[in-house]
Amino acid sequence: MNQTEKKYKKVVLAYSGGLDTSVIIPWLKDNYGCEVIAVAGDVGQGKELSGLEERALKTGASKLYIEDLTKEFVDEYIIPTMQAGAVYEGKYLLGTSFARPIIAKRLVEIAKKEGADAIAHGCTGKGNDQVRFELAIKAFAPEMGIIAPWRTWELKSREDEIEYAEKHNIEIPLTKETNYSKDKNLWHLSHEGLDLEDPKNEPDYDKILEMGVSPEKAPDKATYVTLTFVKGVPVALDGKELDSVELIKTLNKLGGENGIGIIDMVENRLVGMKSRGVYETPGGAILYHAHGMLEEICLDKETQHYKALVAQKFSEIVYNGQWYTPLREALSAFVESTQKTVTGDVKLKLYKGNIIGAGMTSPYSLYSEEVATFGEDNVYDQMDSQGFINLFGLPIKVKALLDEKRGK
Amino acid sequence: MNQTEKKYKKVVLAYSGGLDTSVIIPWLKDNYGCEVIAVAGDVGQGKELSGLEERALKTGASKLYIEDLTKEFVDEYIIPTMQAGAVYEGKYLLGTSFARPIIAKRLVEIAKKEGADAIAHGCTGKGNDQVRFELAIKAFAPEMGIIAPWRTWELKSREDEIEYAEKHNIEIPLTKETNYSKDKNLWHLSHEGLDLEDPKNEPDYDKILEMGVSPEKAPDKATYVTLTFVKGVPVALDGKELDSVELIKTLNKLGGENGIGIIDMVENRLVGMKSRGVYETPGGAILYHAHGMLEEICLDKETQHYKALVAQKFSEIVYNGQWYTPLREALSAFVESTQKTVTGDVKLKLYKGNIIGAGMTSPYSLYSEEVATFGEDNVYDQMDSQGFINLFGLPIKVKALLDEKRGK
Amino acid sequence: MNQTEKKYKKVVLAYSGGLDTSVIIPWLKDNYGCEVIAVAGDVGQGKELSGLEERALKTGASKLYIEDLTKEFVDEYIIPTMQAGAVYEGKYLLGTSFARPIIAKRLVEIAKKEGADAIAHGCTGKGNDQVRFELAIKAFAPEMGIIAPWRTWELKSREDEIEYAEKHNIEIPLTKETNYSKDKNLWHLSHEGLDLEDPKNEPDYDKILEMGVSPEKAPDKATYVTLTFVKGVPVALDGKELDSVELIKTLNKLGGENGIGIIDMVENRLVGMKSRGVYETPGGAILYHAHGMLEEICLDKETQHYKALVAQKFSEIVYNGQWYTPLREALSAFVESTQKTVTGDVKLKLYKGNIIGAGMTSPYSLYSEEVATFGEDNVYDQMDSQGFINLFGLPIKVKALLDEKRGK
Amino acid sequence: MNQTEKKYKKVVLAYSGGLDTSVIIPWLKDNYGCEVIAVAGDVGQGKELSGLEERALKTGASKLYIEDLTKEFVDEYIIPTMQAGAVYEGKYLLGTSFARPIIAKRLVEIAKKEGADAIAHGCTGKGNDQVRFELAIKAFAPEMGIIAPWRTWELKSREDEIEYAEKHNIEIPLTKETNYSKDKNLWHLSHEGLDLEDPKNEPDYDKILEMGVSPEKAPDKATYVTLTFVKGVPVALDGKELDSVELIKTLNKLGGENGIGIIDMVENRLVGMKSRGVYETPGGAILYHAHGMLEEICLDKETQHYKALVAQKFSEIVYNGQWYTPLREALSAFVESTQKTVTGDVKLKLYKGNIIGAGMTSPYSLYSEEVATFGEDNVYDQMDSQGFINLFGLPIKVKALLDEKRGK
Repeated sequence: MNQTEKKYKKVVLAYSGGLDTSVIIPWLKDNYGCEVIAVAGDVGQGKELSGLEERALKTGASKLYIEDLTKEFVDEYIIPTMQAGAVYEGKYLLGTSFARPIIAKRLVEIAKKEGADAIAHGCTGKGNDQVRFELAIKAFAPEMGIIAPWRTWELKSREDEIEYAEKHNIEIPLTKETNYSKDKNLWHLSHEGLDLEDPKNEPDYDKILEMGVSPEKAPDKATYVTLTFVKGVPVALDGKELDSVELIKTLNKLGGENGIGIIDMVENRLVGMKSRGVYETPGGAILYHAHGMLEEICLDKETQHYKALVAQKFSEIVYNGQWYTPLREALSAFVESTQKTVTGDVKLKLYKGNIIGAGMTSPYSLYSEEVATFGEDNVYDQMDSQGFINLFGLPIKVKALLDEKRGK
Repeated sequence: MNQTEKKYKKVVLAYSGGLDTSVIIPWLKDNYGCEVIAVAGDVGQGKELSGLEERALKTGASKLYIEDLTKEFVDEYIIPTMQAGAVYEGKYLLGTSFARPIIAKRLVEIAKKEGADAIAHGCTGKGNDQVRFELAIKAFAPEMGIIAPWRTWELKSREDEIEYAEKHNIEIPLTKETNYSKDKNLWHLSHEGLDLEDPKNEPDYDKILEMGVSPEKAPDKATYVTLTFVKGVPVALDGKELDSVELIKTLNKLGGENGIGIIDMVENRLVGMKSRGVYETPGGAILYHAHGMLEEICLDKETQHYKALVAQKFSEIVYNGQWYTPLREALSAFVESTQKTVTGDVKLKLYKGNIIGAGMTSPYSLYSEEVATFGEDNVYDQMDSQGFINLFGLPIKVKALLDEKRGK
Repeated sequence: MNQTEKKYKKVVLAYSGGLDTSVIIPWLKDNYGCEVIAVAGDVGQGKELSGLEERALKTGASKLYIEDLTKEFVDEYIIPTMQAGAVYEGKYLLGTSFARPIIAKRLVEIAKKEGADAIAHGCTGKGNDQVRFELAIKAFAPEMGIIAPWRTWELKSREDEIEYAEKHNIEIPLTKETNYSKDKNLWHLSHEGLDLEDPKNEPDYDKILEMGVSPEKAPDKATYVTLTFVKGVPVALDGKELDSVELIKTLNKLGGENGIGIIDMVENRLVGMKSRGVYETPGGAILYHAHGMLEEICLDKETQHYKALVAQKFSEIVYNGQWYTPLREALSAFVESTQKTVTGDVKLKLYKGNIIGAGMTSPYSLYSEEVATFGEDNVYDQMDSQGFINLFGLPIKVKALLDEKRGK
Repeated sequence: MNQTEKKYKKVVLAYSGGLDTSVIIPWLKDNYGCEVIAVAGDVGQGKELSGLEERALKTGASKLYIEDLTKEFVDEYIIPTMQAGAVYEGKYLLGTSFARPIIAKRLVEIAKKEGADAIAHGCTGKGNDQVRFELAIKAFAPEMGIIAPWRTWELKSREDEIEYAEKHNIEIPLTKETNYSKDKNLWHLSHEGLDLEDPKNEPDYDKILEMGVSPEKAPDKATYVTLTFVKGVPVALDGKELDSVELIKTLNKLGGENGIGIIDMVENRLVGMKSRGVYETPGGAILYHAHGMLEEICLDKETQHYKALVAQKFSEIVYNGQWYTPLREALSAFVESTQKTVTGDVKLKLYKGNIIGAGMTSPYSLYSEEVATFGEDNVYDQMDSQGFINLFGLPIKVKALLDEKRGK
């Protein structure tokens, strides 16, 4: 049965107050004759929330929820993913990917509380976000209706939307428009569209960047920063304990000023196409770097190598919106187990786009000055190498001997 | 049976002309009463080779071979590894790792030609290089004797060596000594030891760097460079066809000047310990970056993701000195198959340590302007997303429905 | 745009002569007013092909192609997959999975030759086969129309089909019906549906099995068989060279008689649901077993272990119908490289469902009697183990020493 | 420094009462002038322990500890490994591998309590067990001395040992000798050596087997057994709750009688060589089979597929004796997380070497009769497949379109 043929009485909408979701409210009411409850999930996008309620009600919503999810976002989504070392396709720090599940979870909670029979979102039919939203909805409310107007309505462009808004007397929100398609939260800001759509174009960073500056515009003098981790969790900056949200905000500022965390990539979307984007993750880039350095001294080789494989899977799972799945949970259990000893201080030098290690220490360091002092007799006898090589190389030697015999 | 109890008549020595190998020649003659043939494998270390023969003979060698392996090194080892995207522990571009096998292979060839019964090398007993040398020797001459003086002799320090040299009237080679332990070839320069031995110390790059400068010392103006690849092989720079060796030399110069390709890491050695090193790979860093970018548009998602896993294994195999093994060959077959369409131009901006993508094109791009013009009907129907999400999310939905039924 | 709204003039149909495809012919003509060309791809399903042409024409097809794909199926699909050791979810030998791509490829070839503008198949909308067919069609004819009546028509059951057939005066093919849903080819026979739909039911093998008997019904006396492989390709049986098709037929007979190759599993379909099936692959089970045994002596450990990981990916790719993709090709390149030394004889004892190794030999065996005779001095010195263990265990020891120091 | 040059005052010996360890006691006293404390770790090997103390003391030990580790062995080592689905090289159920770490851990505990300065074991220098013992010792007592007489002493054969025993007036233990080298515990019995050393020989199972019979000797009538799991732990057999040790004993009996769990393989030892062995794991084979079946219905696809990769790593880690490592712990955390829903009943038919699924049920089944009754509208719409295929196949289609354009 076609989606729009279904009947809904009360719909919860993921609401931002921008053009798209402003138009969706009357469209939902027109098409379903339903009540619309707007929900704005705050994951640190830093937009003006004042006036949002007025706008939502004016546009036809019966109610607006503003939900501050920032702290939960950082502690339950960002940090576990950073601990995993998960980076999608070697570049993307997943800023949008894990923001969708947490918002969707809250949408479901409100929909259940309100007795709504459907949830609507403003994601396009070509992107990943529709998948991430809907997978999370299915996980918590498998029988909940889902409405994705962009996949079904007749409005095919921004112009169509504006016309629709005017026809319905909806005040069009004024936005400082670069016209790039953006997604912002505490962790990152993404840019897509326009000239970026052709990979042959060099991004015009001076026009694009908002969280910081390009390396060229960064100060000529380096900034040093020291991060302290306890069991893989960042807890202090330059020796001062900081709440995780504040810590990321501070790193965003430091990173942004120093031209750090800018990524330009062509990525593979879940829905089968490639897309090009520019990402700003200034604080995130610093955090990943520091954490990775610390793991170099705190994890043993076998754990470090296998964890790197797990990281790739973790990144795919998060990118695909499969946060609320048994596999993500099991991978998190793996990661958490590895973080027991990831404790210590990492000093970094931030300079014009570079994050440069400037020394680190850990009480759990497996590379400790003290190891050297155990002395050769106790820990390392160079003659052991001969035996090691002989056995490690045994398969090669046997193969070569047999090849010789056969006159290979 | 103890190694040194064995009897050898003619020994081929991996010779550099430095202090270690200068001392090893008389030591071998003393201990085995054998003839020593010195072999200097040139993999682009760029040292003075003039006068090397005189020195070798003076120190007691009966002959010196100088073997130019540079071209083979680039085409048969460096480029295939770069195509694999192999980076050890996410950082190290394997500069020393694949230089050892190619030298060892030539050592065996000469040893066989000369009728030698053993091969000697000057690697310490704590490092990876002994393994890499010996594995390669076993692969080509499984019954060849192997002599590793550092594992067995009584000389425990540089001072012991100097004393030994003086006692044997060996002229000690004068070297500009920073006293870091170094390994240099066309691809890279590594630094270990001294203050680097404690990870808490920030490297003093101005003192360390030789192939280039630190980001701070790099020019204030960016340099642009365009690389052309054909089937994963770099063939031209700024539109000018270049031999692969020349191309890397040019990239080394450009990269070095712009503070690029400097890595500081604590790595896990094959022999079970962690060690800290600083690597300079200016040209290599540029080449990997450009190649990786091109793969973003030329490889499909499934290939790209699986290749990233293969890359890690490839890096371990190379790092461990297992170049001449069936697994490395099979992994190379995989990689080669993926490179069929990795053809195109990549423009990069080099600026104070940063490599910044500045546009790319490929006749095989899977992200092509033309795809957009196929039109929606032909290639992408947004309503397809609904079906996709419903099936992709089916396991999540079924699980949630069942959980509900069970009153989870 | 809805599929059925499209206009097609000439449609090529994957035709079996069964009820489904017999009904599809008039349905296509009714709905599209198009000419229908039927194509029967023979992959060894062993059905009567005599009379098929008459039936196709009578039902309304303008032409019938009967294409013998058996030899290509074995050599280009079955054997490379068997060499990979690919087994879906540890059980399924992929019998249906790789039959679809080869048939679809031929459908495209004929469609192009005939100037058809669409290809139709009779797969249901709940299964994997629709995906496999359509992915292969897209690979060779991306703009070709695809018609999947089961996803769109109003016939919801076998009864509906029979009624439709009678209304259109189509002679209903008489089939010996167990009413399990089956797929048969040279490699296997699958059974789904009826009592199998509940995993709590024990399969009634006596009723289900067609290619052989259950272990209980197998002879009390074992059958021995010796297989000869050259570079991973089976070339002889009991010392007699056999064409690959004949070889599999013979193994099917031997395996079937001895109750071998029966699998009962709940598998995860690509389209998101679990399904339960019983598979008969008597010859395939024997071939995989023999080949795997031979690899135990012909492959080195590193290759063997990594190949086992590749095998899983290979199985997923084949199961998902992604045969004609760069990743499948690259994985095949990997596999092919490993098969260079997989040559030798494997003797097996077949007994009431068991395949029991009964000895094997290979000129490339890395476990050769001769290795033992190289003597300890040359190949293995037990004292080497001490060095090996000390270095292999170094990370554990260092960690423990540090833990002790910290008073863990 | 050579091992035997070290001085030890009190040595704890892993003692079995067999020829090897009986000879080692006087040898240790001779060579080190040390006190020897014998420790027999009982992991269910089922040997006579009566009289063992007398024998140990008579041979020169100052004390004998008999440690019953069976329950801990099952619950902390066997079951977690079975839950992981870990099978070394696709065949070996790791019976010896995880028995060594648990014994070594107890040896260390006793050594510490007794103030011993070394631990001795009777493993040969060619096998895996020396590694497994010593890695575990290093993990718990990194500075403890380790003595491995077989790697150092002059006794090269059984005959040498007997001669040594006679010279020292040691009563030689009478053993029923097939002369295969064996290792037995609750979980398995392994056989190596003699005719098995040549892979071309068919094993003479009637001579070899001790825990059960060959398929041919098994009863003509099948045995049915139902296993109940709760969160991956087997808790009942045929509806009767059983302690885990009793459960395995019962399964051993049932499996052995029915010719089940016999493996013949050429495996890759950690120390670089291939070896051939025959393993009996009757109960283990049944347990793995039942657990794997249950996971088919209780785990979702993504978890199931990734867990299969983890299983391989897990098997290598266990095989290599790396039980007490951060990676094993992290892998176990992953596995444990997946077991939350692995609850249910599995019925099996045991028949002449075959384990045949005979139905299963689970309250957490993701393949439940009830799913079907959710109806099409709610859970599965066949038209969704079209969208799914279109997006899943999009990369293939785009590539094909581009290839066409380029006139591929």
